[in-house]
Amino acid sequence: MDFQQSLRDLTRRDWEHDDGPDEPVRFALIGLGWFTRELVVPAIERSDYCEATVLVSGSGEKAEEVRAEAGGERALTYEQFHDGEAADAYDAAYVVTPNALHAEYVETAADLGKAVLCEKPIAASVEGAERIVEACDEADVPLMIAYRMQTNPLVRRARELIVAGAIGEPVLVEGGMCQDVFDVISPDPDQWRLDADLSGGAALADLGLYPLNTARFVLDADPVEVSGTTASQHEAFDDVDEHVTFEVSYDDGTRGSFYASQRADLTSRFAVIGRTGRIELEDAFFGEPTLRVDGEDVSAELSADSVDGVGELTEEFDFFADRLRAGEPFPADGEHGLLDMRAIEAIYRSAEEGQSVSLER
Amino acid sequence: MDFQQSLRDLTRRDWEHDDGPDEPVRFALIGLGWFTRELVVPAIERSDYCEATVLVSGSGEKAEEVRAEAGGERALTYEQFHDGEAADAYDAAYVVTPNALHAEYVETAADLGKAVLCEKPIAASVEGAERIVEACDEADVPLMIAYRMQTNPLVRRARELIVAGAIGEPVLVEGGMCQDVFDVISPDPDQWRLDADLSGGAALADLGLYPLNTARFVLDADPVEVSGTTASQHEAFDDVDEHVTFEVSYDDGTRGSFYASQRADLTSRFAVIGRTGRIELEDAFFGEPTLRVDGEDVSAELSADSVDGVGELTEEFDFFADRLRAGEPFPADGEHGLLDMRAIEAIYRSAEEGQSVSLER
Repeated sequence: MDFQQSLRDLTRRDWEHDDGPDEPVRFALIGLGWFTRELVVPAIERSDYCEATVLVSGSGEKAEEVRAEAGGERALTYEQFHDGEAADAYDAAYVVTPNALHAEYVETAADLGKAVLCEKPIAASVEGAERIVEACDEADVPLMIAYRMQTNPLVRRARELIVAGAIGEPVLVEGGMCQDVFDVISPDPDQWRLDADLSGGAALADLGLYPLNTARFVLDADPVEVSGTTASQHEAFDDVDEHVTFEVSYDDGTRGSFYASQRADLTSRFAVIGRTGRIELEDAFFGEPTLRVDGEDVSAELSADSVDGVGELTEEFDFFADRLRAGEPFPADGEHGLLDMRAIEAIYRSAEEGQSVSLER
Repeated sequence: MDFQQSLRDLTRRDWEHDDGPDEPVRFALIGLGWFTRELVVPAIERSDYCEATVLVSGSGEKAEEVRAEAGGERALTYEQFHDGEAADAYDAAYVVTPNALHAEYVETAADLGKAVLCEKPIAASVEGAERIVEACDEADVPLMIAYRMQTNPLVRRARELIVAGAIGEPVLVEGGMCQDVFDVISPDPDQWRLDADLSGGAALADLGLYPLNTARFVLDADPVEVSGTTASQHEAFDDVDEHVTFEVSYDDGTRGSFYASQRADLTSRFAVIGRTGRIELEDAFFGEPTLRVDGEDVSAELSADSVDGVGELTEEFDFFADRLRAGEPFPADGEHGLLDMRAIEAIYRSAEEGQSVSLER
């Protein structure tokens, strides 16, 4: 891998098998909120390797409505899904419910022998994450956590450039993700994202996880020690963190300086500073990143039209389908998601106790 | 103050009195390292309000050499300065020695009744900072700490824009400063910046102080609680921090997420994220920043040719001269510098003890 190859073919699918899957992977989409309807359904429509055949929601009416739009075969209620209805109509379950509810749908999918693509964070707690890992292990079904950054072509190019030495040995990682949740997601102060039991946290668990995990991916490193500070000002955030700053020590010796907010200007960034250069992803986590690399032997600023909010998810679903059909393991598996969950809980504990927390390995 | 005025007249000297000082302020420059020779002497040459009349160094020969170049009146050794030689030839002392030595030169200057411009950090320890504040208080001489960012026109515009509401209520501040000290400053592993007794710290005290203090300035807020993590890899950093990440809670409710390194790619940035917009200073701390503001009612990207490494220091020296002649107090006074020193010591303590540290007020 030289620098130029990374830069020339920005949206190259380095993971793709020669012919792709023999036949499309048929998905049950479990949870039909705005993210599923506005991003996932169009992303699957763009995909060559995936189909949305079954639509599952708490409300049968809503499921039917989305099925009609998405052109799926069956609409199910959550109860019908748990009862195993229409299990022949899908190969994999994409779980995109509130975080605390992931486990029950993953367990049913595993019992039914279905592969699982589970949204991030894997759960609302370490306990929930362990349930998910165990269910998939016991049923021997493949599990991937849906870290869309890990299949974003620009993030993959950033990782290649780092591995190829474009910025020298990595030293620091910095970045963050902010949005106004009432503006971007929903004006409802009672939405599940602000309910600690359902979400497991707001600023950190929902947004801060992006730079935390993207650093793991591009550095190929895991967190070993964390500390953080949280704050809430608006009454809707009585039980969860509205803002967070946190520090992470990774096992390769780099350290991260990160932040997130659920009530701030829509902005995100991610950068790795190395001994001799740096790589920056501007607008890193909202679907249309710009990659900047500035090193001794390479300097470029690049973006790709196809990498918008929908295109990014097409990459994720196609990656999942490609590896699933090839019978290959998923790098972002349950254990990978569980470690992030441990880090999240440790950062919250650090914020509460005012001290840094080591992650047991 | 409306947004447009800030953006139209970028290098406006909002602090300047109508006619400026009646006569130039004559400086003794105490410490003739590369920073003085390459940046301060040219900055004073560009200035209308300042003159470098006395050059003071450990070596009389070096002092004479710089005097000849700079066109000053007298060259003194440190001993001669302490003896009060040529005291009629200068009005103010600019102290730019290793941090731990600031106090002794400030004390002599104060005894001689001279105004003092002291480099940042004010000292290498809280104790040293207190000595400096006390000496200037007792002698009733004005003292300003040389935070060049506070007189950088682009930073002043950033502050005005924040005050005018361009980004809504500030929520988070992020940024950092990195350099390869062996490349930028000196290849000598025994240089004073890496000697804990002389410097008081490396990554944080020398570089991390920039975002820490710039946040204080643009937010008009002070740190109340801090935490941090330090690390050293290269043997020259056995006694001091090579890298640092740290978090600061400010008394206006904002929080900062910062980093610094003495052995990384030359890079710096600073950003304030507000409820409805953000202000960013790219290349914030190395002399030629670009100001970006992106808010509901204003969006711009601006830089000024005159704000290079030298021009920035001309602003600082002229600001000092202008206020000194007008008999007005300095916002970045000894107490201001002392509080940063307390924050620095608290961050180092936090890194050592693994817990966050409150700053007594």
